Amino acid sequence: MSVMAKKKKSQAKGKGKSSKYVYFFGNGKAEANATMRDLLGGKGANLAEMTNIGIPVPPGFTISTEVCDLFYKLGRKYPAGLKEQIDANLAKLENAMGAKFGDKDNPLLVSVRSGAAVSMPGMMDTVLNLGLNSDTVQGMIIKTENERFAWDSYRRFIQMFGDVVMGVEHEKFEEILSHKKHQLGVKNDTDLTANDLKEIVRLYKKVYKEGTGEEFPSDPREQLDKAVGAVFGSWHNPRAIKYRQLYDIRGLLGTAVNVQAMVFGNMGDSSGTGVCFTRNPSTGEKIFYGEYLVNAQGEDVVAGIRTPEPILALKERMPSVYSELVKLKDKLEKHYRDMQDIEFTIQEGRLFILQTRSGKRTAHAAVQIACDLVKEKLIDWDTAVLRVDPKSLDQLLHPMFDPKAVRKVIAKGLPASPGAATGKVVFSADDAEARGKAGEKVILVRIETSPEDVGGMHAAQGILTARGGMTSHAAVVARGMGKCCVAGCGTLQIEYEKKLFIADGQTVREGDFISLNGSTGEVYLGEVKTVEPELSGSFAKLMVYADKIRRLKVRTNADTPHDAQVARKFGAEGIGLCRTEHMFFEGERIVAMREMILADTLEDREKALAKLLPMQRQDFEGIFKALEGFPVTIRLLDPPLHEFVPHEEDAQKEMAQVMNISLDKVKNRVRSLSEFNPMLGQRGCRLGIMYPEIYIMQVRAIVEAACNVKKKGIKVQPEIMIPLVGIKAEYTRLKEQSIKVIEKVFEEKGEKVQYMLGTMIEIPRAAVIADKIAQEAEFFSFGTNDLTQMTFGFSRDDVGVFLGKYVEEGIVERDPFQSLDQEGVGFLVKMGIEKGRSVRENLKVGICGEHGGDPASVEFCHRVGMNYVSCSPYRVPIARLAAAQAMIREKKAAKKKK
Amino acid sequence: MSVMAKKKKSQAKGKGKSSKYVYFFGNGKAEANATMRDLLGGKGANLAEMTNIGIPVPPGFTISTEVCDLFYKLGRKYPAGLKEQIDANLAKLENAMGAKFGDKDNPLLVSVRSGAAVSMPGMMDTVLNLGLNSDTVQGMIIKTENERFAWDSYRRFIQMFGDVVMGVEHEKFEEILSHKKHQLGVKNDTDLTANDLKEIVRLYKKVYKEGTGEEFPSDPREQLDKAVGAVFGSWHNPRAIKYRQLYDIRGLLGTAVNVQAMVFGNMGDSSGTGVCFTRNPSTGEKIFYGEYLVNAQGEDVVAGIRTPEPILALKERMPSVYSELVKLKDKLEKHYRDMQDIEFTIQEGRLFILQTRSGKRTAHAAVQIACDLVKEKLIDWDTAVLRVDPKSLDQLLHPMFDPKAVRKVIAKGLPASPGAATGKVVFSADDAEARGKAGEKVILVRIETSPEDVGGMHAAQGILTARGGMTSHAAVVARGMGKCCVAGCGTLQIEYEKKLFIADGQTVREGDFISLNGSTGEVYLGEVKTVEPELSGSFAKLMVYADKIRRLKVRTNADTPHDAQVARKFGAEGIGLCRTEHMFFEGERIVAMREMILADTLEDREKALAKLLPMQRQDFEGIFKALEGFPVTIRLLDPPLHEFVPHEEDAQKEMAQVMNISLDKVKNRVRSLSEFNPMLGQRGCRLGIMYPEIYIMQVRAIVEAACNVKKKGIKVQPEIMIPLVGIKAEYTRLKEQSIKVIEKVFEEKGEKVQYMLGTMIEIPRAAVIADKIAQEAEFFSFGTNDLTQMTFGFSRDDVGVFLGKYVEEGIVERDPFQSLDQEGVGFLVKMGIEKGRSVRENLKVGICGEHGGDPASVEFCHRVGMNYVSCSPYRVPIARLAAAQAMIREKKAAKKKK
Repeated sequence: MSVMAKKKKSQAKGKGKSSKYVYFFGNGKAEANATMRDLLGGKGANLAEMTNIGIPVPPGFTISTEVCDLFYKLGRKYPAGLKEQIDANLAKLENAMGAKFGDKDNPLLVSVRSGAAVSMPGMMDTVLNLGLNSDTVQGMIIKTENERFAWDSYRRFIQMFGDVVMGVEHEKFEEILSHKKHQLGVKNDTDLTANDLKEIVRLYKKVYKEGTGEEFPSDPREQLDKAVGAVFGSWHNPRAIKYRQLYDIRGLLGTAVNVQAMVFGNMGDSSGTGVCFTRNPSTGEKIFYGEYLVNAQGEDVVAGIRTPEPILALKERMPSVYSELVKLKDKLEKHYRDMQDIEFTIQEGRLFILQTRSGKRTAHAAVQIACDLVKEKLIDWDTAVLRVDPKSLDQLLHPMFDPKAVRKVIAKGLPASPGAATGKVVFSADDAEARGKAGEKVILVRIETSPEDVGGMHAAQGILTARGGMTSHAAVVARGMGKCCVAGCGTLQIEYEKKLFIADGQTVREGDFISLNGSTGEVYLGEVKTVEPELSGSFAKLMVYADKIRRLKVRTNADTPHDAQVARKFGAEGIGLCRTEHMFFEGERIVAMREMILADTLEDREKALAKLLPMQRQDFEGIFKALEGFPVTIRLLDPPLHEFVPHEEDAQKEMAQVMNISLDKVKNRVRSLSEFNPMLGQRGCRLGIMYPEIYIMQVRAIVEAACNVKKKGIKVQPEIMIPLVGIKAEYTRLKEQSIKVIEKVFEEKGEKVQYMLGTMIEIPRAAVIADKIAQEAEFFSFGTNDLTQMTFGFSRDDVGVFLGKYVEEGIVERDPFQSLDQEGVGFLVKMGIEKGRSVRENLKVGICGEHGGDPASVEFCHRVGMNYVSCSPYRVPIARLAAAQAMIREKKAAKKKK
Repeated sequence: MSVMAKKKKSQAKGKGKSSKYVYFFGNGKAEANATMRDLLGGKGANLAEMTNIGIPVPPGFTISTEVCDLFYKLGRKYPAGLKEQIDANLAKLENAMGAKFGDKDNPLLVSVRSGAAVSMPGMMDTVLNLGLNSDTVQGMIIKTENERFAWDSYRRFIQMFGDVVMGVEHEKFEEILSHKKHQLGVKNDTDLTANDLKEIVRLYKKVYKEGTGEEFPSDPREQLDKAVGAVFGSWHNPRAIKYRQLYDIRGLLGTAVNVQAMVFGNMGDSSGTGVCFTRNPSTGEKIFYGEYLVNAQGEDVVAGIRTPEPILALKERMPSVYSELVKLKDKLEKHYRDMQDIEFTIQEGRLFILQTRSGKRTAHAAVQIACDLVKEKLIDWDTAVLRVDPKSLDQLLHPMFDPKAVRKVIAKGLPASPGAATGKVVFSADDAEARGKAGEKVILVRIETSPEDVGGMHAAQGILTARGGMTSHAAVVARGMGKCCVAGCGTLQIEYEKKLFIADGQTVREGDFISLNGSTGEVYLGEVKTVEPELSGSFAKLMVYADKIRRLKVRTNADTPHDAQVARKFGAEGIGLCRTEHMFFEGERIVAMREMILADTLEDREKALAKLLPMQRQDFEGIFKALEGFPVTIRLLDPPLHEFVPHEEDAQKEMAQVMNISLDKVKNRVRSLSEFNPMLGQRGCRLGIMYPEIYIMQVRAIVEAACNVKKKGIKVQPEIMIPLVGIKAEYTRLKEQSIKVIEKVFEEKGEKVQYMLGTMIEIPRAAVIADKIAQEAEFFSFGTNDLTQMTFGFSRDDVGVFLGKYVEEGIVERDPFQSLDQEGVGFLVKMGIEKGRSVRENLKVGICGEHGGDPASVEFCHRVGMNYVSCSPYRVPIARLAAAQAMIREKKAAKKKK
């Protein structure tokens, strides 16, 4: 809006006659400052700001965005007076640099760059070395004493100018270059001599003429005009228009043009170039850190031909420049109140800062620096909290690969559970357990995992599966264990009989080493060194502050007393999702569960359930104890029954034997349970309605456990959750049934506990009729995994085939299973909350999908007024930090509004 | 609202002192009329109305709903003055009937019934014969000269009174009855003698005393008080509360109580009872129609022991009664302006009308009567249109079973495609074709059908499948053909090898006769006679009027030129859904399609697609010609590719042979195409994005065909529809790609046609972001099949397991796949339309799911402002009629508002 307002103002102004179109910066003074982004673009405003605070950036001037606007309004013509203003600023620039545009002895060269108020990468490339021609190239040779460099700069300039400004096909230039190299029998550009490059310049000019129909302009002033025109023209090129549409960028006047003096670090031994950090980006230590090269340009550093020297060497070689650099880096860090990554060039003893930006850092360093900056009073705690990327905390909580280790990627799957793991390949859970007991480190590789594999998963360092998504058995169980897992790695061809798998043409056999990166989904061949995480005191300090300010509670998804304890250590304030079915997967439980499924009569089912009851009760007791009074949301049985029966003949035979029934009976039942689309089949409360006895047993186990624990003097807060409700009557019926059981248990136990009954909102229809459901339900927990599946019509287990392409090509911004789709799914969530609270003001609302651990999603949950998020134990700190950031951003936005 | 207003008014009134609580009707005059529903309930108001117009209903009185309200307000006590009013009315009633309450010679007996303003079946049962005791039963014996009847009435009264009024367990009475029969060695109640019944009365009274702790009341006045109290008390019983919740009935004061004199048709030969229709309910002919029994009660007619005589016989036996009855039936028909179904009793030569209601009739009669009543100026055309149930038109359009034919149901599946079919069972499409050619009538029975079966389906009379839902291949193809189909008949055990199936314990072998009812889903053993439909002139007349007034257009779902022609004959005004994939299923097409799917490279895929292009183009040409300028919405390829490949090894071998590739390759590809949840997998526009060449070919075929047809001077209106869009960028990309192809074809052909590009809204997310999609799309077609699946999270192919129970137990009101779920799915549809039109005012909107042929859904589509509905050809007339009804109801509602 403010941009629009300014736009109107500037339109009015544009009609005036003595408008200022060009803004100079240099020699410690600029005609603008950081607040003038809209008029000068981000880059222009920044250059002005740095100049003003005394940073020696190469001088130059910015042609304002207003000119761009007028350029189009006037039918691609410049406003009157612009030429004169450019001339005047050019003169100033020549003066500041002590060089002259087009001068053959001491030529001024400039760069020309676009720069709008909002960064738009890909709108127009940069043109460097503008000002070169047959004369000035000679001056450059003299100044740099490097003929080859001068000619190379010239040929690059022609290519850039031809391509970027005049639209000559890039290819055409490249052809000449390769042809020349081929002719000379050399491989690299660096093998070309000054003379070769001179010849190429000649050929480039020919290409330029063929492409444009005119001679390459030798007049630097003409070069500049053309380049400026090209920048303004690029504002409405299809790429830029598309970009603005895509990111919904509106209300801008246009782009500014930045014309800035080129400086050279290769003008002899009093010149040089380098990069430095104000603090150590790996550890966060407050130590000046960096490297530089004498008599070199930036490209030389990148090319890696010469090894740079540490920044301290500069102190000896050019003490005054070094001390100036130290002063400048301190100034920059203080000004920007963050660790800076600074590029500098020394031209004949004169220091120029080319660029400064907040430096990239490890998570460890980020936490350290943030806390140190608070101590140094440069920033407050709010800012410190905002400075740490919550996602990066994964690095602090899981083992990571040594960043220096070499790795060979042989496959990529889904990053199902973060961390790093290395070990010998095994193909069965039994082998994993056997080798694990023998002290070997193993990676369990399976097409997919099933309940029988849990022991082996526990014994393994990591799990790799060929099928299944982020919510597959392997993924969910691994996350609960905090164990590294790569799932759904479809390119893996696993052959169990031969005990090998093939990936990327590589055969990997049992006992071979592989390594898994659970944070990226990469699978590496061989053993890759890992480093263990360490949590610093600064981390603890930061989290204390984060916890103090956040409004959103953070709970965890945990299914066992052990998981619950781990999560408590990570700061979980309750369990948001306890998946009772995971309790059915082990040992005799699965047998009883299968008996229940195979039963023909209610009586037999109840008999089998009676066996499960004490086991469930015991688990719940353990969980309630671990939670020490924090709320525990327990979801009643959710997955379809066929997940509990074996699908392979061998396992079916075993099951028939154990249960003393015929194989046919097992097969028939398995077949009758199979579904076309199990995601949308008989699961959740639909099971609960078809087989009331299952939920009755579960509710009884929960409440009996709660009473027992309470009797021991421990507070309990059970929240019983009915899954997959889409119809009000589903909920009402199961609620009434549950209350009956609860009252009965209370009577039997002579004890009562506070409890809540609520539901998961995971079916689009549930969000639509949330007001009706909330008449009955005391809490909502948004199951955004399933809600995403159904809102998009994406089966999480199948989307792999196309979702990669969707993300790559920008059809979706992000994988909606990793970060909540706020536009679509988020709309339903928001509507669900509003409708729910419209009939039950104090409705408790949380989220228990994978999204609960994704920072952007956590911020969304904060914004729509949820009470808590719930995520896997190892993501709890991430969510805590993200929740704090959301609160801080909200406060800031509120302040701004005032 | 009006009820609420009245409520307040009556509350105020209730506080006054001389309120009128009881309203008499009888002897040609009533103290109330039809408008007083809120105060007297539906039944009470109706009895008053009939009395007022001179219909001799048995006299009685109604205690108002206000009393019910006061009853609760006063803590289950009656307002002052009520007793006196009841007494006064009882006296009037005695007077009117010439009988006395409790009189042992000429006793007055009454019935007591509840009756609220809104019908609430199951709230409270009726109590009949109230007033009987040891004295009055004697009077009854004298009057009826039928001792057995009197005692039987008495024992029934005790049972009803005990059960309904006093809550004595029904079972208890039944036990005595069975015990007695057992003792006497008789089977039926009718075998019991007067003495037996007398003994039972004694025993019943004992049961009564045990159950209630008090003697059975012999005082009729006490009986009456208790019964009235029970009716009022039933207003707040759990059943009634539940019912009101379920149907969202609010704002009622309570129930009224109707006390009405009993009349008896079994008081000798001048008495009798009967039922008559004012017109023939089978044909609609204006002929007085009915039957009666002399000296009999209603039960005797029901029991079927005596054969009733035709109504004309009454003319001879009791000419004056007959002529009075004729006068009355004419009066009733004129008054209610509809064919009436009238129950009457003659008590000692005095005619009483017990009940009149609009008579049930066949579809044929409904149409005939409606048109005749218009001609007779009793109703207008609007009313006539409303009088015909659109669903009943199925009877007019498909063969139906002879209603008189006896049938044995052996299984029940989904009513996938309406009609009736009878034939010999065959288990393969080849057999169906062979026998079909030989002139035999066959029913094709398959586990499920696939594209290879289309020929056999065509040759068969009907199709029966064990798996698959209402949108399964069998169902969709059968509906297109207008062929009877029962799908997803899960209880069928089909054994292909043995050529038999087992259902309900019955083994049916190849060649055995079965019959299918595609309108109910029933499967009958043996041959059941069918009757062919006939369309009358009245039907045509009615439809002309319906078409004239409806706003909603009706299109059809048709995939072939033949279907399109059929649909045109049924009045379709365009095609709303042409599923291009159905064109790929036949003959060489499926081969080319499979080549495309098996291709490893883009080039090979394009080669295969090039073979399909001319076939598709030809089909489109045929369709455009058949539609003669009406719009044709063509959906680009939608189903997942695995639907086009065989899943059984034999077929795979054949495919490998035909395509000259290895079986392994076929198997691998089939495997790689398999999905966990195909519903939510790679289909629709996701395919279009992964394989752009498919949609490019299809768009080309459509536009080439359109140009070719236009060149022949025929108008064309293609509407190209991109399916399964959930993300704006999906649509934009495919739209842009399509436009490029279209422009190219226009150039090549030197011809242009008007066309539209739009999308299906079938994914919940699409409804949520409909405003964004409408920025790009010119039309929406709601694909409510898939939208229902995803909004509910119901896989249509799997819900059979629980949806039956859901419907039975009222968890859902109706199968949401048969009638649109207006609360949930409808919310998304409405929101989608509103959002869409908010950015594109003239957005064309239709529906193309199964719901397009369901009258309630059609009304919904009308209400939310759709432009058209589209349904299978045979449902077009149904939709036309339903659309007209929707319009009429809208007009009526608007009038009422004024």
